[in-house]
Amino acid sequence: MTSFDTITPLLEKQAIELPSWAFGNSGTRFKVFTTPGTPRTPEEKIADAAKVHEFTALAPKVALHIPWDLVDDFSALRRYAEDHGVALGTINSNTFQDEDYKFGSLTHSNPVIRQKAIDHHFACIDVMHATGSQDLKIWLADGSNYPGQQDIRGRQDRLADSLQQIYARLGEEQRLVLEYKFFEPAFYHTDVPDWGTSYAQVAQLGDQALVCLDTGHHAPGTNIEFIVAQLLRLGKLGSFDFNSRFYADDDLIVGAADPFQLFRILYEVVRGGGLDDDSPVAFMLDQCHNVEDKIPGQIRSVLNVQEMTARALLVDRDALTTAQEAGDVLGANGILMDAFYTDVRGPLAAWRESRGLPADPFGAYLASGYQQRIAEERVGGTQASWGA
Amino acid sequence: MTSFDTITPLLEKQAIELPSWAFGNSGTRFKVFTTPGTPRTPEEKIADAAKVHEFTALAPKVALHIPWDLVDDFSALRRYAEDHGVALGTINSNTFQDEDYKFGSLTHSNPVIRQKAIDHHFACIDVMHATGSQDLKIWLADGSNYPGQQDIRGRQDRLADSLQQIYARLGEEQRLVLEYKFFEPAFYHTDVPDWGTSYAQVAQLGDQALVCLDTGHHAPGTNIEFIVAQLLRLGKLGSFDFNSRFYADDDLIVGAADPFQLFRILYEVVRGGGLDDDSPVAFMLDQCHNVEDKIPGQIRSVLNVQEMTARALLVDRDALTTAQEAGDVLGANGILMDAFYTDVRGPLAAWRESRGLPADPFGAYLASGYQQRIAEERVGGTQASWGA
Amino acid sequence: MTSFDTITPLLEKQAIELPSWAFGNSGTRFKVFTTPGTPRTPEEKIADAAKVHEFTALAPKVALHIPWDLVDDFSALRRYAEDHGVALGTINSNTFQDEDYKFGSLTHSNPVIRQKAIDHHFACIDVMHATGSQDLKIWLADGSNYPGQQDIRGRQDRLADSLQQIYARLGEEQRLVLEYKFFEPAFYHTDVPDWGTSYAQVAQLGDQALVCLDTGHHAPGTNIEFIVAQLLRLGKLGSFDFNSRFYADDDLIVGAADPFQLFRILYEVVRGGGLDDDSPVAFMLDQCHNVEDKIPGQIRSVLNVQEMTARALLVDRDALTTAQEAGDVLGANGILMDAFYTDVRGPLAAWRESRGLPADPFGAYLASGYQQRIAEERVGGTQASWGA
Amino acid sequence: MTSFDTITPLLEKQAIELPSWAFGNSGTRFKVFTTPGTPRTPEEKIADAAKVHEFTALAPKVALHIPWDLVDDFSALRRYAEDHGVALGTINSNTFQDEDYKFGSLTHSNPVIRQKAIDHHFACIDVMHATGSQDLKIWLADGSNYPGQQDIRGRQDRLADSLQQIYARLGEEQRLVLEYKFFEPAFYHTDVPDWGTSYAQVAQLGDQALVCLDTGHHAPGTNIEFIVAQLLRLGKLGSFDFNSRFYADDDLIVGAADPFQLFRILYEVVRGGGLDDDSPVAFMLDQCHNVEDKIPGQIRSVLNVQEMTARALLVDRDALTTAQEAGDVLGANGILMDAFYTDVRGPLAAWRESRGLPADPFGAYLASGYQQRIAEERVGGTQASWGA
Repeated sequence: MTSFDTITPLLEKQAIELPSWAFGNSGTRFKVFTTPGTPRTPEEKIADAAKVHEFTALAPKVALHIPWDLVDDFSALRRYAEDHGVALGTINSNTFQDEDYKFGSLTHSNPVIRQKAIDHHFACIDVMHATGSQDLKIWLADGSNYPGQQDIRGRQDRLADSLQQIYARLGEEQRLVLEYKFFEPAFYHTDVPDWGTSYAQVAQLGDQALVCLDTGHHAPGTNIEFIVAQLLRLGKLGSFDFNSRFYADDDLIVGAADPFQLFRILYEVVRGGGLDDDSPVAFMLDQCHNVEDKIPGQIRSVLNVQEMTARALLVDRDALTTAQEAGDVLGANGILMDAFYTDVRGPLAAWRESRGLPADPFGAYLASGYQQRIAEERVGGTQASWGA
Repeated sequence: MTSFDTITPLLEKQAIELPSWAFGNSGTRFKVFTTPGTPRTPEEKIADAAKVHEFTALAPKVALHIPWDLVDDFSALRRYAEDHGVALGTINSNTFQDEDYKFGSLTHSNPVIRQKAIDHHFACIDVMHATGSQDLKIWLADGSNYPGQQDIRGRQDRLADSLQQIYARLGEEQRLVLEYKFFEPAFYHTDVPDWGTSYAQVAQLGDQALVCLDTGHHAPGTNIEFIVAQLLRLGKLGSFDFNSRFYADDDLIVGAADPFQLFRILYEVVRGGGLDDDSPVAFMLDQCHNVEDKIPGQIRSVLNVQEMTARALLVDRDALTTAQEAGDVLGANGILMDAFYTDVRGPLAAWRESRGLPADPFGAYLASGYQQRIAEERVGGTQASWGA
Repeated sequence: MTSFDTITPLLEKQAIELPSWAFGNSGTRFKVFTTPGTPRTPEEKIADAAKVHEFTALAPKVALHIPWDLVDDFSALRRYAEDHGVALGTINSNTFQDEDYKFGSLTHSNPVIRQKAIDHHFACIDVMHATGSQDLKIWLADGSNYPGQQDIRGRQDRLADSLQQIYARLGEEQRLVLEYKFFEPAFYHTDVPDWGTSYAQVAQLGDQALVCLDTGHHAPGTNIEFIVAQLLRLGKLGSFDFNSRFYADDDLIVGAADPFQLFRILYEVVRGGGLDDDSPVAFMLDQCHNVEDKIPGQIRSVLNVQEMTARALLVDRDALTTAQEAGDVLGANGILMDAFYTDVRGPLAAWRESRGLPADPFGAYLASGYQQRIAEERVGGTQASWGA
Repeated sequence: MTSFDTITPLLEKQAIELPSWAFGNSGTRFKVFTTPGTPRTPEEKIADAAKVHEFTALAPKVALHIPWDLVDDFSALRRYAEDHGVALGTINSNTFQDEDYKFGSLTHSNPVIRQKAIDHHFACIDVMHATGSQDLKIWLADGSNYPGQQDIRGRQDRLADSLQQIYARLGEEQRLVLEYKFFEPAFYHTDVPDWGTSYAQVAQLGDQALVCLDTGHHAPGTNIEFIVAQLLRLGKLGSFDFNSRFYADDDLIVGAADPFQLFRILYEVVRGGGLDDDSPVAFMLDQCHNVEDKIPGQIRSVLNVQEMTARALLVDRDALTTAQEAGDVLGANGILMDAFYTDVRGPLAAWRESRGLPADPFGAYLASGYQQRIAEERVGGTQASWGA
């Protein structure tokens, strides 16, 4: 197995973007529970995200959601973030909470509504220029609930046209990443339901258009690491939305449901060049902390990604190739499992300390008093949430 | 195949309970869309439900949800319903929208919170006495999101104790029906996830405790008609919550996603005695009309159940038994399919007219002007919804 | 709704290819049951397939599987088929039953084994020239059972190279169709698991390479009609393998598990031009009659496709478009359901009689005495099967 | 976390039964690959199983499958096993490979065939008396492929009657364990598809009848540890069939697909008393080594169970309870994960050596020369397989 020392240079470069909305309240259609200290403003969300980075050195960027994070002056917000030690990252559009979008947005048959959705993306690109963001991430709730309700093929054509218009507006350094999702909120058909659709759409746009893979957006049983390897091979993996699931799009802490799957995904990232300097892959979290505390939930999440990345880097790839080519099924599997079962937490803690970080970021955060402070100070106002 | 005339006496007795909450707004965690004319009060919900019965003669009862339908005087509400030609039916408890229930209700490890949840059910039983309701339906959101978060076995023991206390409070003519659900809102473990758990729990309570089967609450691929047949055989099928799904608990119009499955379910109901005079089975809808109009959605739903019941009744059961026992695979399957493919809509329309009902209840409702009237009249106030 | 008379010209052109192997024995890993009269030779399979066409006029072609249908003289087999009123159709390769292919065929890391698999496809192309077949269908069992066992990305590159070599050998009128499958016989990763992979691979080959969609080869819950619409839109739907499933790749009679799904698929075929004269879409069955009689099973299958095609053609597409664009959810859904619930069996029977065909092909076949005759005559020899 | 020393007494008692058939060839409906050295006789299977025990001290029993392991003198076979250091364990009946059972066995509507199936179980009980086996394990392939093909309710009644007759024949120390399975080989309905059915059936028989839980026999997404906890609570968990799966009943090496799930299952076993001296739970493997070597595959399997049991025993249960009752979601989850992520392989190796066992049983077996020896010696004869 590869030695721990040889992998720290790669670990040192690891950067995971945090979603601003993970610090607000979230829940299910049945109930959104509240928590003391929940941010009321984009600034408070950024302050919380910056805490995660402070304790882990893993999360230098914060992704925004428009209009949830709409402010008058995005340049000021950018400076606010930088003052807190983080940068603003991916801009996420939102075309699912306006009554006009009941039957679609970029796919809508009504040209007025479709233009409204396109214009929203133009506005997002304007935000990106102000925030210095690279990626415009498009996740669409578009779909239908009943067979016959919509023309699923015509919507695909309109989607292509809408994306083309948005793509044409991108700056030279900007990218469009198109996320796919198996189902929800639509229950019969979804307009971008799988990686094949996202790939077919972005392939027609050009080099600045890529696929976003959310680890919770697949059919039961889907081999996600295969898709990761395939998209890397095709040069079209733009970003990850990390989270985990047992059933549907549960949006649980990444690595919480099936840590071995996360390991396999990260192994394909590693060997597909996803951690290389010139890699196009952006790593993001997209999670909901419905019942657990949010900042500690995010700290646990980035640590899970770090720990699994370390395990993936430990795989003895030469030995693995030899076993694979020899048809040594149990030997090859054993080499992979050896890395997975290695407890990297001790070496990681020591390495963190050597860099001036807390050995145990989770415990250090809990001991820092920040959580109590925000719970006391953030009184009044409206706690941030999805506003569904 | 059985002739249509012979089945009308059974069809005539068919009664499907409507859920009051189907007339309010509902949606997903992403968005709840509104519709003009949505009821603001329990009375307006009942008035709308009564319309469904007026046009179909299929829906003589309205189920209530406490506290969504909480009123000061349930006897008055009962009279209001009766004045509108319907009765009040099943009382549904709700232990998922209070902050106290974040980590459970009837299963909670904190005795104070658990007692609060038990007391809520005592209050529901009091309502039942006032409304003349037979069934207390218990669906629990109890569960957990992360492995280790809760003691899944201890919760089962506490559930048994809580149910025992509630059961002991039932009146002689009252019943407790325990609903199971595969997942949601909990994403790791659910305390009553399958029919086996519900059956094991109610079997320990006594004859007045039965299982409620919601057709949308199963794992992918589950053979639901098998469970129907099994529960009927065990004498423990208390009620149905009808709806349909493509993915998870989509709560779509019953019969919309897989009409053949609805047919197979109703065939097992028919042959298991579920339509007999002494049947213990209550038929209910439990649906969400997120994007479609609510009253027409309910009309379509009860008509779907009626049409599939008619098809199920048309099966030539003697011929089927003969083919089954002869090992005639294609013959037996063909007999079932013959009934399924029979278009019963014409005979049903004629039969409706012969009873003084509109041949086409759906069209007749749309033409009645009711929808426009409530859209105009119900201005102001707060539209009813789950209040999540 | 469209009138029946207007759709018969399209129905008249419908042609469904039968798989020779459907007439042999098949089963599960637990048991292959035998049936009297099962063919022993390719000729007997073709004779049985010709019977299906004789009674239905729906099945003018028979697909072959190499080496299951290997004969010394394929030109003679072609004449044999033509003498029986049918033509030879798609040639299916087989790289899953030789010990050499235990760890892969077109994806194998050993160049000798990979070349052997490529050569097998060259041999299949030679067969195609002799039989006059248009399509070379490639379904690969390639995959692995354990994480780490194989290099899933390297295999994708080798697959691309192998396909390129095979593609280069195609005649001008020949096509390569690449089938995808979710899982089985491999249980961890499959090299062509989804339509996205098949599409990405064939898109790199050229215009004569297309995707084959087997209706049983998807993850649970997959919206298959969406994929149909998408592939038609992309111009890459080459062929169907029709069958039905409740769980995995059950290979049941098409339409048996979810007739409404078959209807929705065929509706997208119809509106996507899949029945047009210049359509590139070939319609095939791929089924296993494990417990039912084989010839009647195939007759039932082609009739199911015909009946559902008729229903799909009956959809009032103008009215549907109007309702869709108006956001009339229940209206649009109702227009689709109206066609689905229409009992087309009577009009189809009358139309068949008008063409000199039996009104009830299934019953006519049973009454013909053919089944008894082959059961008596086909004594001795080895019944055809997969030979697994 | 609990210290390793305190858990070794429990680990020392761990015993996992090996299935004789795991040493024979197995495969899919597509192909059964062979391997050099595969046993030809029940004796050779037992010799191989004894090797697993020799190197691990974990597998003191071998389960037999009748008629696959049918011998003239089971008392002699018992002595043969004992001479090799192992005992004969569970007797598995087989009612799925006789043509008579095409449409069922214990559920068959034909009384002659049903009696034949019952008689087979009587014969199995006779074998048990000769072998000293405690458990008769019944897994039924009974089911149907098409809706309407069989009377699913009547079959349940006949199953109850058949089981009653078999149960009545049990000796005082013998038990009947009824296994359930979601699907396969039947593709529409299965007569014992879920734990609820198995539980309802065995509950009616008496104390000597229990449920067998095969970890690969559930619907996608099923929370298996919940079922484990529930059956332990109900006193009805009789035995495990361990294996793992990504899709269906893949029968892969236990722990290979989702090691964290195996950990959670074993944690519920531990806390439910499943490892206690008076525990009714028998631990078995039921796997297919389709592409990997069989003896090493079994060694890896029992080691996986041992390693995960060790991790489950390491959980600090007091701390966990405290965190659970405090509603500390992340704390409680963290306590569980801490044990899971602990690398127990080193301490286990040292402990093995202290007991005179090889530190690395897998490597020691490979180095022993046994595999080469059997490959050379076992020439001629017919390699054992399922004979499907």
